[in-house]
Amino acid sequence: MPESPAYAPTARTVPTRARERASYDRESVHAALDGAVLCHLGFLRDGAPVVLPTLFARVGERLYLHGSTGSRPLRTAQGEPEGIEVCLTVTHVDGLVLARSAFHHSINYRSVMVHGRAVPVLDEQERRRALNALVDQVTPGRSADSRPANAKELAATAVLALDLAEVSLKTRTGDPVDDPEDLTLPHWSGVLPVRTAYGTPVPAADLPETTAVPDYLERMAG
Amino acid sequence: MPESPAYAPTARTVPTRARERASYDRESVHAALDGAVLCHLGFLRDGAPVVLPTLFARVGERLYLHGSTGSRPLRTAQGEPEGIEVCLTVTHVDGLVLARSAFHHSINYRSVMVHGRAVPVLDEQERRRALNALVDQVTPGRSADSRPANAKELAATAVLALDLAEVSLKTRTGDPVDDPEDLTLPHWSGVLPVRTAYGTPVPAADLPETTAVPDYLERMAG
Repeated sequence: MPESPAYAPTARTVPTRARERASYDRESVHAALDGAVLCHLGFLRDGAPVVLPTLFARVGERLYLHGSTGSRPLRTAQGEPEGIEVCLTVTHVDGLVLARSAFHHSINYRSVMVHGRAVPVLDEQERRRALNALVDQVTPGRSADSRPANAKELAATAVLALDLAEVSLKTRTGDPVDDPEDLTLPHWSGVLPVRTAYGTPVPAADLPETTAVPDYLERMAG
Repeated sequence: MPESPAYAPTARTVPTRARERASYDRESVHAALDGAVLCHLGFLRDGAPVVLPTLFARVGERLYLHGSTGSRPLRTAQGEPEGIEVCLTVTHVDGLVLARSAFHHSINYRSVMVHGRAVPVLDEQERRRALNALVDQVTPGRSADSRPANAKELAATAVLALDLAEVSLKTRTGDPVDDPEDLTLPHWSGVLPVRTAYGTPVPAADLPETTAVPDYLERMAG
């Protein structure tokens, strides 16, 4: 069955305010997720919210998270076949928006929010696929150029899956929007573009000098 | 009374795993907060976690958040003089860490996590200070070069305060750490540095051509 081009909005993915907009477009959501290095994962601990920065990967309509079996959310989730309720948010800052009025200052951004239950992945093949995807999410092409996890490492790693079902994308783009009566004020207004920049790869101290920087890394470093 | 150089660790800011480390050093925490454009704010809605990317500002030992009085967390908090329980996390990605083994891949980062109650700020002077700080957090120097909020704008803006009390900083720096038996593998290993880069300021379409880019912006754009 071909997938719908959009996620179905739900009570918690529909904006509360009339002037807010959200997108449910699958391709746009995927693009925002795929360009990110990490997410912020929200879950409950003793009834209180915790927001943890963590790596993630997307494989089709499923996100994967991983961590030591000793880490708190992973340990909690391992004991719960039904998983744990999470909110996973990925945000890109694209620009600083400077208006003439302090009030209309903003940022240009793209932010994906995923609600759902993160469930433990127990199937070994899926766990291996997830771990490769986690390496490739950060550095595309890297999993094929590193030693795969061995049995001991696999056993020490918890993998969680979160399906992309309850998902929305919020975006701001473009110029500041000043009130008409502010347009004659003398202040500069516009956007300062922001992006993530990669520097020159720094070899590990224990790397033989003859080991060349791989192509996929040269391309990222630009 | 002079402030202690460190925040006091609590049950939820002490790492659960022996090999994890957290810092409570006040200056390091301030530095990580001050260099950030946005935070991820975790709170509960109908008992489930929500993680919202949002602007913030630090003034001394207090963080400020703001938003439309119509937005969900702000509206909830406005009705609660005791505030709402939040977890506020600020993360900088400093490098991609490529080890010879997939297992030891990581990122270099700095992440501040603050637990506590976000309480509504009602005092008008403090609200004004907070709104200026929110503008200056993103673009230092900007609040003095924009029109301050008027009475109507102030009334439409909810401000929350979160005191820096239960705070920790987690950091990873330096080379990948490979297992001794992996050191002879042929894979490149090392760190790809990551930073936030600012582009050339883009004037708003409605800005007179004679308006010069201000110094504080030129300095950021580098």
